[in-house]
This record gives sequence, structure tokens and C-alpha cells, in this order.
Amino acid sequence: MVQEARLMALDLGPEADLDADMRAYFAKCREKLGFVPNVLKAYAFDNAKLKAFIAMADDLMLGDSGLSKLEREMIAVAVSCVNHCHYCLTAHGAAVRQRATDPEMGELIAQNYRVAALPLRQKAMLDFAVRLTEAPDRIEEADRATLRRAGFSDRDIWDIAAIAAFYNMSNRLAAAADIKPNREYHYMVRERTAGVAPALVGAEGPASTRRAGEAASAAAANARGVMDLFGDGAVATWVL
Amino acid sequence: MVQEARLMALDLGPEADLDADMRAYFAKCREKLGFVPNVLKAYAFDNAKLKAFIAMADDLMLGDSGLSKLEREMIAVAVSCVNHCHYCLTAHGAAVRQRATDPEMGELIAQNYRVAALPLRQKAMLDFAVRLTEAPDRIEEADRATLRRAGFSDRDIWDIAAIAAFYNMSNRLAAAADIKPNREYHYMVRERTAGVAPALVGAEGPASTRRAGEAASAAAANARGVMDLFGDGAVATWVL
Amino acid sequence: MVQEARLMALDLGPEADLDADMRAYFAKCREKLGFVPNVLKAYAFDNAKLKAFIAMADDLMLGDSGLSKLEREMIAVAVSCVNHCHYCLTAHGAAVRQRATDPEMGELIAQNYRVAALPLRQKAMLDFAVRLTEAPDRIEEADRATLRRAGFSDRDIWDIAAIAAFYNMSNRLAAAADIKPNREYHYMVRERTAGVAPALVGAEGPASTRRAGEAASAAAANARGVMDLFGDGAVATWVL
Amino acid sequence: MVQEARLMALDLGPEADLDADMRAYFAKCREKLGFVPNVLKAYAFDNAKLKAFIAMADDLMLGDSGLSKLEREMIAVAVSCVNHCHYCLTAHGAAVRQRATDPEMGELIAQNYRVAALPLRQKAMLDFAVRLTEAPDRIEEADRATLRRAGFSDRDIWDIAAIAAFYNMSNRLAAAADIKPNREYHYMVRERTAGVAPALVGAEGPASTRRAGEAASAAAANARGVMDLFGDGAVATWVL
Amino acid sequence: MVQEARLMALDLGPEADLDADMRAYFAKCREKLGFVPNVLKAYAFDNAKLKAFIAMADDLMLGDSGLSKLEREMIAVAVSCVNHCHYCLTAHGAAVRQRATDPEMGELIAQNYRVAALPLRQKAMLDFAVRLTEAPDRIEEADRATLRRAGFSDRDIWDIAAIAAFYNMSNRLAAAADIKPNREYHYMVRERTAGVAPALVGAEGPASTRRAGEAASAAAANARGVMDLFGDGAVATWVL
Amino acid sequence: MVQEARLMALDLGPEADLDADMRAYFAKCREKLGFVPNVLKAYAFDNAKLKAFIAMADDLMLGDSGLSKLEREMIAVAVSCVNHCHYCLTAHGAAVRQRATDPEMGELIAQNYRVAALPLRQKAMLDFAVRLTEAPDRIEEADRATLRRAGFSDRDIWDIAAIAAFYNMSNRLAAAADIKPNREYHYMVRERTAGVAPALVGAEGPASTRRAGEAASAAAANARGVMDLFGDGAVATWVL
Repeated sequence: MVQEARLMALDLGPEADLDADMRAYFAKCREKLGFVPNVLKAYAFDNAKLKAFIAMADDLMLGDSGLSKLEREMIAVAVSCVNHCHYCLTAHGAAVRQRATDPEMGELIAQNYRVAALPLRQKAMLDFAVRLTEAPDRIEEADRATLRRAGFSDRDIWDIAAIAAFYNMSNRLAAAADIKPNREYHYMVRERTAGVAPALVGAEGPASTRRAGEAASAAAANARGVMDLFGDGAVATWVL
Repeated sequence: MVQEARLMALDLGPEADLDADMRAYFAKCREKLGFVPNVLKAYAFDNAKLKAFIAMADDLMLGDSGLSKLEREMIAVAVSCVNHCHYCLTAHGAAVRQRATDPEMGELIAQNYRVAALPLRQKAMLDFAVRLTEAPDRIEEADRATLRRAGFSDRDIWDIAAIAAFYNMSNRLAAAADIKPNREYHYMVRERTAGVAPALVGAEGPASTRRAGEAASAAAANARGVMDLFGDGAVATWVL
Repeated sequence: MVQEARLMALDLGPEADLDADMRAYFAKCREKLGFVPNVLKAYAFDNAKLKAFIAMADDLMLGDSGLSKLEREMIAVAVSCVNHCHYCLTAHGAAVRQRATDPEMGELIAQNYRVAALPLRQKAMLDFAVRLTEAPDRIEEADRATLRRAGFSDRDIWDIAAIAAFYNMSNRLAAAADIKPNREYHYMVRERTAGVAPALVGAEGPASTRRAGEAASAAAANARGVMDLFGDGAVATWVL
Repeated sequence: MVQEARLMALDLGPEADLDADMRAYFAKCREKLGFVPNVLKAYAFDNAKLKAFIAMADDLMLGDSGLSKLEREMIAVAVSCVNHCHYCLTAHGAAVRQRATDPEMGELIAQNYRVAALPLRQKAMLDFAVRLTEAPDRIEEADRATLRRAGFSDRDIWDIAAIAAFYNMSNRLAAAADIKPNREYHYMVRERTAGVAPALVGAEGPASTRRAGEAASAAAANARGVMDLFGDGAVATWVL
Repeated sequence: MVQEARLMALDLGPEADLDADMRAYFAKCREKLGFVPNVLKAYAFDNAKLKAFIAMADDLMLGDSGLSKLEREMIAVAVSCVNHCHYCLTAHGAAVRQRATDPEMGELIAQNYRVAALPLRQKAMLDFAVRLTEAPDRIEEADRATLRRAGFSDRDIWDIAAIAAFYNMSNRLAAAADIKPNREYHYMVRERTAGVAPALVGAEGPASTRRAGEAASAAAANARGVMDLFGDGAVATWVL
Repeated sequence: MVQEARLMALDLGPEADLDADMRAYFAKCREKLGFVPNVLKAYAFDNAKLKAFIAMADDLMLGDSGLSKLEREMIAVAVSCVNHCHYCLTAHGAAVRQRATDPEMGELIAQNYRVAALPLRQKAMLDFAVRLTEAPDRIEEADRATLRRAGFSDRDIWDIAAIAAFYNMSNRLAAAADIKPNREYHYMVRERTAGVAPALVGAEGPASTRRAGEAASAAAANARGVMDLFGDGAVATWVL
């Protein structure tokens, strides 16, 4: 097995005395997910840093948005593909597989989203996220206009940008510290599903259809016994 | 004047009802800095997002660290130079000029830190920050080892990485939304100083000397009547 | 499900009248692997082209060489990672998982081999393969010398180069024609193994240990019921 | 003279016992071309590898195709220009000069095909080949559509891709092993021709005109006493 | 203070015996500008080289042209931004601030001209200059056509190209020799102006308006007491 | 024939009234070289621009320098290879063939100097020129130190830089205006020489040997009746 036992390449000392919120958050992770994501363990040497990171990630990935949760994970994975981030591709690849209830989905986005048969909306969304990743200084009004034509509001554009930007941050932190993903991610949602996630088949369908499709997927996921810790507003987590 | 009047290229609606902390924070900015940094105004459409952003930025730029505050601003500027971020080069260029009490310093780092006569420590620090910006997937143990040889602890390496990563995020958000810097930044700390900041002259000096030098700089800055809102632990801000 | 039903984006007409060798080869694929790899179906419009492709691929991946079969697959995957080739990452990712009897191995190499704890030999091998992929015009004698120092003979260097070069070809053919990988690859060798492949743990071990390790892996693979069609010299195939 | 006497930078041992086909092939090269191309001599340490390479190259460059033989050589040269491959630019530069009966043609394509006054068809063909070389992961349906609009069938697109892909392979093998081109290539087809190759003048002409033009060129080549070993179906070679 | 006292990193010996023209030129610089630009001092080891450099620079930046002098400085700065040239960004940044009578202008172009609200004409001009800087081999007729549509004559296109090309030269000379800019540049035209330069507000205005605007700016500059040595045809200089 | 009849893609109007010096210069070109280089014809619309360009080019390529004239042409060609400049590769490729009295030399440097068996001195020289071309902002003291270790004086380093910088300018001007090289260049110095230029065989020989070798080459060139217009100090030209 190539992956090493240690959490990361930096020795940051022992875990800090976490406050009650953070302890509860870790407990919830263990209960719902079965483990605490290693990126959180990496941050645990400092309660304030951990808290700030979780606050931002939870807001972006689980807060109110015109983007579905699957779409947000797709952005995370497409950005991480450009940056070749082992941690994020592993953790968020699992999340895309889970959100889409499609084991092939995470692979496809993690390898090259351009060969996926995506709805125009999601194609435009990922094109923007990748362009922002590769050449932020080239973004011009035309790029925002393309997103608006694809049906995104200005508020949606902010969210696409904020999520793509966030993973440009976390990819780099994971790379610099060489944070290892929890091994469990590799094995999540790897079984072949009977059908096809409706959200993605109707590639040109309206957003309402897409949302419905994703809801159906989520139901299917639960039906299949896949862990689902995303519905809990209190201390929800993402499989970062 | 080329710069436009509007705050940014996205219409995110009116400012949210900010909570007491955020209102106090904005008030402090106006009092100490004379204005609220536009990136915060851009975030003000949503109290939770604003709060998460400030929490992370304040922790990184003003919290406890083995890096001096000038060094942290240097990282912000060197990363923003790679990404050609108008907002961050303007705001953090001002911050470097102020922290170094040297009007030429911000220009130099903002244009090309490689031609600056930096101490080896700071050269290694910026080399790592830029490499992490340009090619996060190429970071290997040898890169961390170079930082350790330059005198950085693992905890310092985390901070260098976290700050470089954070500006890779904020550069992209500023680019995507085309956030305009407050015009005041252009005019801050533009007068020629009599002497030379000791922190940077003794290029190979030990960290203690460097810190002392920076302290002297800060004193000089105050003596010269430059605004200084950085010493206030309660709701300190950075000129982000 | 994002992936489309059609084999590829080009309509090349019906399958050619394959000769006896090619028909036997396809039959062997179906018997041993359960399906004919789509890249071969893509080539099947022309018997001569199919035959030439198979002859070269079989020679490189299964013929006599100082490189183990796992190492050859690792080269295929590392090159395909640079080129973001969905087809090859999927098919050869499965092959690395199988050859290493380690489900995490394919992921790791497919995402970023630099964060894998590889033996120096394999690190040098993949560094060369990736450099040859990204900048063939920069190869100089120093690059060959590095491989020799890592224990490779000139004959081995030829093989590393020939395999890296071959996947630079097949990646581009798959990209141009948008050849879809067989869906089965996604689900192969996804179950967590009890132990750790010895070949990779003893990172600095001699080649003999490494080979032994790989042999043990292959035995384990068979024991676990994983399909193994690699031992058959007559019309052996690779999961291209 | 800068070029060294040795064939390449790798010592692969003596020439293998070549089988009758390969011996006949080498004899034909010596008879028609005056020498055995060095890339074949490089491969001659192993009869199977040599045979597989020749089979693929002959099929691509001399087999049935909607692309003229000149066009195939143009692809080889344009790809080799991106990869700065000394071997292929020298050998296939000679081939373009010969096929076009125009000594300036090889230079132009080898230096920068974008400044050549090419027919739209050939411009589209080389744009695709170069894009596939530089960024295979960016190929999308729009790229194939552009080729179709330029008059290419799906079968032609396969051939363009397969040839471009093949030279991405052989460029890298030549680079890795530093294979030296036969010195004779430098001196082939260097005399100024009286007229202008009709194939390229009628830049927008239909394919039939273009083919006729090229046939005329070939005739002119023979008339001028230029070696022509391309008309022999049995063991034809390309000046690889 | 980071910047070093020495002129550059190369020791080229003492200043040559300059001829009368060059001595007069240096005297004029001291009189009008207050100092001799360091790039000229760097060249002063050889009278012929100095003279050739000044002849070309003066012709391009001050000679007759369809481009305003501000526009020429904008090209210099946009090119220098791509090349991260400390010398040229400092000296020509000052020149843009002065020509535009707008202290924010130089910053904006030096950091990222794409976020400036430029007239279409100037946007097209800088797009071409930057493309020519980054990828000269990609220039095609379409690029020239875009400039013509933006209102430029072929003679103007030559000037845009010649100026962009010249700064690709001088950026590289400054980088190779590490020529330090005169410190005075940092402090020129740093005071906030009352109004807005009309040349740039009427972003879509006709060239005549633009020129008038620039004339007004120049007048304002003089009124504000900014040094102006550009009106003197005899031995005019640019703040290179 | 692909190359077009027109001089360039820009219509700059008729040739200017050239002054006596320029008329004499053109006459000398016609007498010695058989034609006026097209880059000079392109510049001839303006006497001052033509004169400035010739002054700089003649000084760099023919003036006093520690670099041999062959070495200067090698820099021109290596830089033009990076920029894929058809004009300069054709004209200066001919110059390298002529200066080295080796028809293979120009090809080799024009295609990829890294595969040439160059003396360390010339390898270091071209490495620096190419690095300065590709990434001027990355030049650091270590790059200059490498040149000094290879035997170059600071004055030589200036010349290497100035020549590399000059061709970064002229490559871009040729690209922007699409200046066509005179067709004659293609056919110059294409015949195989009997021997081998001693300058390049003794790859590690001292500078004195190298110079002697080049002198011998020049003698051989004259003996072979190759045009030589370089010995004339009055209005010498280069085959630009």
C-alpha cells in the first residue's frame, strides 16, 4: 500500500483543546461518516483555525444557494483535477459519487469533465470554475455573461466563484502539508447502480427538473443504505 | 480615471442586516482606516459569509505566528503578483509599504520579488508561496526541506502555505466578481522615507534582529503619522 | 449517468471482417475479461490498424522487459494523468489496482504520483515518463543519467520511454475520437484488501524483493478471484 | 560538425537476428532511399518491436486514406515542430519537401505552419493536429465539428488524429533515446524548383483538384530524378 | 530598503567617452527629469550602443504616430506586466501616471489591464500587444483584422507591434542585467487628482475626443507642476 | 508554393526617400548578398526607423564582442526557435550554416539546440538566451553565475542578453507584420561539406581553439565561393 500511515508531512504538535462546538462537530463526523476527515484533523492543532475553516466550508457547500449540492461538489472536483490534488479528488470524488448516486460520475469529473455529457448549465459552470483556476487574470465580463446566458444569477456566479476559489485554497493547503485522505473515501459508493441518475440524463432540462432529479438521487442513495450526513442543519459536514 | 465607480461586476443585492460584531467591525474600519475595504462590502450581502471570511483572514494575517506581519503581507502580494490581482496588489501593496515603512517595498514585491535583495529566509518563503501558487501538484518533500533549512518550523510552513493558499482564494474571488479596490489604497504610504527599514537591510540577520527591525519600522510608521489599526486585538483588520 | 452509450464520437462504419487472429483475440478478451476493451472495438473498423495497435501494445505491456508489469501500468497511468485521458485513466487505473492488488494504488497514481511513497526507482521512472510527456524537447543526457543511477539499464530506459510515448499516442487518439471506457473498469478491484502489497512498502528494497512482492500480489489477486488474463502468452491482452 | 557519429544515446546491444521480412525491408530502404532510416536501426535490437513500429507507420503514412500522402507528412512535421523533435523535423521535413516538390514547403511547416498560405482544409487539419498535441484534454465536439465543416469525413478525422498521435509517440521516443537523423535528409530536395506546386496554389480548390495537383507534383519529382520509393506497395517505406 | 545601491548586476567598466550628442542628452535628462534614467547609464559603457538604443526608443515613443504618447506608454507597461519587469514597470508606470495625469492609471495597467474600463480601441491595442508578447507564433490575420476593426490603420498596427516588440527587448535586457530603476520614479505623480482624465472616461469616444482629452491631461499635468520633458523635439526623452 | 509574393501582411505605403547612407546600404546588400533582406524593405517606409534598426542590429551582430559571429547567430536562431519565427529561422538559419560552413548546423540549432553536441560554453550561452526568452522574470544571480563559470565576462553576458533580447524584438515584429523571408535564404549553404568544422568538434576545447576553428571555417566558406559580405566594416550587413 503506497499511502502512508501518518496524517500529513508537517508535525504541528498535539491536537488543541477543542471547544464544545468543535468537539460536537467531530463527534457528529464519527457518528455519521464513521471518521473525522483528515483535513479537519490536520487543522485541529488550533481551535480558531479549525473553526474558521469549517465555518467557511459549511457555508459554501451546505448553505443556501442556487447551486445544488451535487453541483458544488462537481466544482470542487473539477478544480482539484486541475491542481491534481490527491486529498480533494479522493474525498470529493466520493462526494460526487454519493450526491449523484452514480459511481462513474466522480471518476469522470475527476479525470476530465470535458468528456462528460453534461447539461449546458453545468458545462458552463465548470468551464468558468476551471478558467478561474487556471487563469484568474483572464476573467472578463464576457465570462460572466456566458454564465448569465446559461441561466445563472449574479448570486449564483458568486457561489460558483467562491467555491472554485475555496478549493484553490484547500488544494494548496493539502499539497503543501501533504495531507492524506482517509482511506475510507476510496471505498465509498463504488457499487454499480441499477439505473441512471435522472439529474444528468436530461442534459438540457430546466433547473427544476434537475433539482427534482437530484432529490430522487438522494432518495435512492438513502434507499441503498449509503451514509447520508448532509441533511442535518446543526453541525452538518461535507466529506471534504 | 479608468477605475469605475461601482464596487464590483456582480449585483448581489442590498447589504444584509449585519450582526453586532460585523457592524462594530465596519465601524472600526471607518475609524481606523477611514473606509471599509471593498472586499468586505462585497461580502456584506450575507452576514455569515462575511463573518467566515473575516474570521479566516484575521486569524491568518493578525493571529499568532512565527511569521512577522510584514512577511505575511509579502506573501499576499507575491501570490497576487502571479495571479495579477488588481484588488489585492493595490490593497496589500499598500500594506507592505506600510508594514515596511518603505514606499518602494510594495512596488518591488508586487512587480517581481525575485529582483529584491531579500534575506534568504524571505526569499525561500516567497519561492515556496509562488511555487505553491503556480504548481501545487509539484510540491514535494524537498520543498518543505528547503523551508526548514531556511529556519522555518513546521508550524511556520503551515502558516506560509495557509496564507499563500488564502490569497489564491481571494485573488480568484476578486477576479471573478471584479471587485474594485478602494481608491485610498493607491495614495497610502507614498512619501519617501529618510532612512532604510532595518528589517530588510540586514538580509542575513537572525530572526530576532529582523523582528526588532520590524518593530522599529512600526515605531517609525507611527512616528510618521501613518494610520495604524493593527495593534487592536479586539476587531483588528488588515487592509485586505 | 453521465457517460453515453455510444462507443465514441466518430462514426467509422461497421466492424471490418476481422481475420482469424483478431477474432480469436476478441474471443479471448470476452472469455478472460468479460468484454472487448472499447479501444479495440474503436479500431475494429480496419483489421490492419487493429492488428498493428495490438501488436505494439502487447509487446510493450506484456513482452519481455526489465520493468515489471505493474511498473508499466504505472507509467501508462502517470502519463494519462498529465493528459487527463478519461479512457486510459479508467482502464489502466483498473489495471494498476489489479496488478498491485491495491485498490488505492490506481487512484493515487491517477491523481498525482508525486504524493505516493514510491521506491526511488519508481519515482525516477515516473518523473522521466512525465517529463517526456510534458516537455520532450527538454530531455538531456542528465535525465538518462538519473535513470541509470536509479538502477535502470539502457534497455530499461528504452522501455520506459517507449511505454510513455505509446500512451502519449493512445491518450491523444482516445481524446480525438472521445472513446468511452467500458463501464466495467470502474468497478474492478474496488474492495479493500486485508494487507499491504509488499512491493511498495519496502520502498527502497532491491528489485528482487520488489518482483517477489509483485508475484505475491498476483497470487493474492488470483486468490481473491480477480480475473487474470495476463498469464496467457498466446493472445494475452492488457486492460487497455 | 555538431552532429555526433553514434546512432543514439542508448546502448541497446547488437542488432537482433531480423526475420526475412525485416531484412527485405532494410534492403529495400538501401536500394530505394540509399540508407536505412536511423529510427529503424534504433529499433533493430528487437525484431518484434521493429516489426510493430513499421507496421503501424506504414499503415498510417502509406495506407489507404482520404488524406494525401503530402498531408500526412505535413501533420508529422507540424506535430514535430511543437515537440521540437530534431529527428522527425529532419526526416519528415525532407519528406514534405519531396512530396510537395517544393524545397520551401518543409521549412515553412517545420518552422510555423500558421504563416503558410494553406488551403482552409489543410489549415483546419494542422490546427487540430497541433491542438491535439498541445492539449489533448481540451478536445471537444466543436473541434471535430470544425474538421467536418472543412470537408473531412469521420474516417479522415480518425486518420488526422492517428497520425498526429503517432508522431507524439515517435517524437518522444526519438527525444528520450536522442536518435540522430541520417545526415542525408539534410541534403534532399534542396534545389529551387522552376514552378509552384499546383496542390498548394489553389488554396480553396476542391479535394479532387488538390489530389490532381499532388499527383502532378509526384510526376515532377520523378522527372527531376528525385528518389521515389513511395509507389511500391510491397515493402514501401516513408522517410520517417 | 530592499533596493540595492548599485546600478545593475553586471560590471561593465567605466562610462565611455560619450560624444557631444550623448553628453547633451544626459544633460537634458538631468535638467528636465532631475536624473539620467538608469537604463541609459547602464548603456553608457559604449557610446554606439547607447546611441542606437536612444535612437530607437525616441523614435518609437516620441516620434510621429497615430498612437498617442499615453497609448504608447500603456503598451510598454502592459508588456512589462507580462514579463514582470521591475525596471520598466517602475519607470513606465510613472510615465503612464504622468501622461494620463492619473496616479491610479499606471497601477491599473501595471497590475492587469483587463480590469481597466478602457475604450475598445485601447483594449484591442493592449490585447494585441500582450498576445504578441506571450505567443508571437500564434498571430494570424484575424488578429490584425481585429485591430483594423477597432479603427487602427496598418501603420498604427506597425507601431503597436514595434513598441510591444521593443519592450520585449528592453524587459529582457533589464532582467538579464538586473538594472535597478531610479528611485525617483516611485514617487512621481502619486498625488490624487481632483478630476478624472477625460481621455479615459469617454471610453467609446472617437479618437479625436481621446486626443483632445489627452491634451487636456497634459495641460493639467503642467498646471500641477509635474515635470514635463516630453515637448522638446531636440533631445526629448521618455522616462524609460 | 506556399509562400506568398507580397512582402508582408501590412500595407505601409511606398518606400520613403531614403538618405544617402541607407541607399548605399541597400546597394551594398544587393551587391554582396544579391538582394535586400525583406526586413529592411519592410522598414523602408520610414528612413529614421530603418536607420535605427540597422544601427542596433549591425552593432550587435558585427560590432566588437567577446562572442564570435557564429555564436551571435546561434543565439538569434535559438531564440527564434522558441518563438517559431519563420522569418528569422530562415534568414539566420542560413547565416549559421554559412558562419559554421556546416549545412547541418543551422538545422540543428533551429530545431532544438539541446540535442547538439555543443561546447559547454555555447550550451550555457544558449541555455541563458532561451531562459531569458521564455521567462525573463525568473533570471536570478545564479543564472549569471553559471555564465561566468562557463568563461563569460560580464561584458559577454551583456552581449548574450542584448542579442537574445534583440531577437525577441525582431521575432515579434516579423510575426506581427508577417514579414516573409527572401526566398534565396532557403537555398544558401545547402551543399554537403567535405569535412567537419573544427570549431564544433572539439566540444570542450578552450576559446582560443574555438575561435581558430571558426576562422578556419570562414576561410573554407570563402574558398567554397560562398558569398561573404561580413568583412566590410563600412556598411556591413547580417543576413537578418
